[in-house]
Amino acid sequence: MAKRCLGIDLGGTFIKFGLLTEDRTLGGTLQLPTPPGGGGDRVIAQMADGAKRLMESAGLKRRDVVAAGVGAPGPADFAAGVILAMPNISGMENVPLARSLCEAIGVPVVLENDANAAAYGEYCCGAGVGCRNLVLLTLGTGVGSGIIVEGEVLHGSHDAGGEIGHMIVQPGGEPCGCGQQGCLERYSSAVHMAGRARRMIEEGKTGALADVLRRHGVLDATDILATRKAGDALAAEVWDQGAYYLAVACVNICRVLDPDKIILAGGLAGAGDELLAPVAAHFRRLHWSLTPPRTQIALSALGGEAGVIGAAAVAWRASRQK
Amino acid sequence: MAKRCLGIDLGGTFIKFGLLTEDRTLGGTLQLPTPPGGGGDRVIAQMADGAKRLMESAGLKRRDVVAAGVGAPGPADFAAGVILAMPNISGMENVPLARSLCEAIGVPVVLENDANAAAYGEYCCGAGVGCRNLVLLTLGTGVGSGIIVEGEVLHGSHDAGGEIGHMIVQPGGEPCGCGQQGCLERYSSAVHMAGRARRMIEEGKTGALADVLRRHGVLDATDILATRKAGDALAAEVWDQGAYYLAVACVNICRVLDPDKIILAGGLAGAGDELLAPVAAHFRRLHWSLTPPRTQIALSALGGEAGVIGAAAVAWRASRQK
Repeated sequence: MAKRCLGIDLGGTFIKFGLLTEDRTLGGTLQLPTPPGGGGDRVIAQMADGAKRLMESAGLKRRDVVAAGVGAPGPADFAAGVILAMPNISGMENVPLARSLCEAIGVPVVLENDANAAAYGEYCCGAGVGCRNLVLLTLGTGVGSGIIVEGEVLHGSHDAGGEIGHMIVQPGGEPCGCGQQGCLERYSSAVHMAGRARRMIEEGKTGALADVLRRHGVLDATDILATRKAGDALAAEVWDQGAYYLAVACVNICRVLDPDKIILAGGLAGAGDELLAPVAAHFRRLHWSLTPPRTQIALSALGGEAGVIGAAAVAWRASRQK
Repeated sequence: MAKRCLGIDLGGTFIKFGLLTEDRTLGGTLQLPTPPGGGGDRVIAQMADGAKRLMESAGLKRRDVVAAGVGAPGPADFAAGVILAMPNISGMENVPLARSLCEAIGVPVVLENDANAAAYGEYCCGAGVGCRNLVLLTLGTGVGSGIIVEGEVLHGSHDAGGEIGHMIVQPGGEPCGCGQQGCLERYSSAVHMAGRARRMIEEGKTGALADVLRRHGVLDATDILATRKAGDALAAEVWDQGAYYLAVACVNICRVLDPDKIILAGGLAGAGDELLAPVAAHFRRLHWSLTPPRTQIALSALGGEAGVIGAAAVAWRASRQK
């Protein structure tokens, strides 16, 4: 039986599980709901249950599984395997996840930030294969990021590297929940694009997007994308501003890291070329003229599986370092 | 005789030489003028001459010198040891510097970007001792930078990493010679601070700094610093804007790299606390409130010797990797 590593992607709604061979083939996958009340013990029990069910259905014994990797939203002490808090799951303060899950399933467990894990997944098995350096931007409710430098996940000195959603792209700009002003996330996340459209409609803007808000009482990025395709001027303006600031961030990423690729992932990247084309066009226009742009802006190849594949790949990486 | 590595810092006006022991003690140093007409052959001959003179005066035989490192302004192909061009020295197009200098002095030669070498020097022997991750900003005519990630110089995928002087800190801002708008260098370099002050005086601003311009016909950063200390409002405004945008860049460096330290170096850093205090104050104010700032802003410890020490340290590093 070929050895496997187990990848677990811990999200606010679902826990995803997957098995990865050393030659980077994804075997079985499984998805379970995150226990709605949260709590470290219940979350770990659900993880252990899913891990055992997936191993069983794949006909794997414990000795066939080399290690498990867990991708989780921060903040965490990754070296110690401890989750310090989770914004979307309650009762997850100071949870020694790596140790407890290891005791429950009997294999070594490595904890990694979820966006870092997704970046490592794209690096090993997705849009980043062949790259030495890459940045993944996850565009959803917020803007997250993971960075790979010379094949390794960049953590920084205080586990706070790769927070590009809070790069200041407009000094003195819109206030962000983090306490800064003008963060990338305030212009280019799904929630903030919808919020900006809503404010502009309330200030008197009309059109197809305004009609959607009047009919449904709410707006999301899907509405912006759909009405933009149909020619709505407000939707085009909001979408374009999101793409513009993403491109500013991409130029700045090049000036610091000079990666092979910047990969757009997360819900908004589901728009495909509707997102990629305007970001790439702004990027080419904003980029210096000293050299042509050599960093490629690309879409995620693994989509929603990047996290679980990356978590398993992180486990493989850790097992080889021992 | 303890082994040494030779460090050479190639600048537009001077070539500096130094000898470094493996335990990081700087031995003899030497400074020669850069051949005024430039040209690859003459520059390399001057480097070889300086190297031999320094080795002789230190009583070193060729076998006592393990390797030589050269820090040079880009663009270059560092892996191949070839200088592609030099902005301040003519006739330096496609110069195979590492090979030619190796033939001339009989020791292996490693080529590195000058700001990267200075960053590595501070990492090994200066303000960055004990850091895992650091960024050096060289503030002079322009704004250069060098980045150390987990103890290694960051080059990026196309030898264009660490160009933080061209981070966009003000989208749509002042046009830069690189073709972008709103680059850090346009606000925080000595030349551009002096240029901005000059424009504001020409538009009618008065005071001590305006008097200096009227008396001397020119302005530089020293004038801004001196009149700011004496209470001139225009000088204070220009200096503070430079510090503000440096702080924006420092926040963004934290969001990408999360280093232990950001080290201010170069001519402007000679102002000491006059520069450090306002940059650090803006940084604390602009920094998110999720965690207190853990990245320290600090002044260079090696000053003008960082380049030559760093070039020698890069040579030591390369010799150990073989």
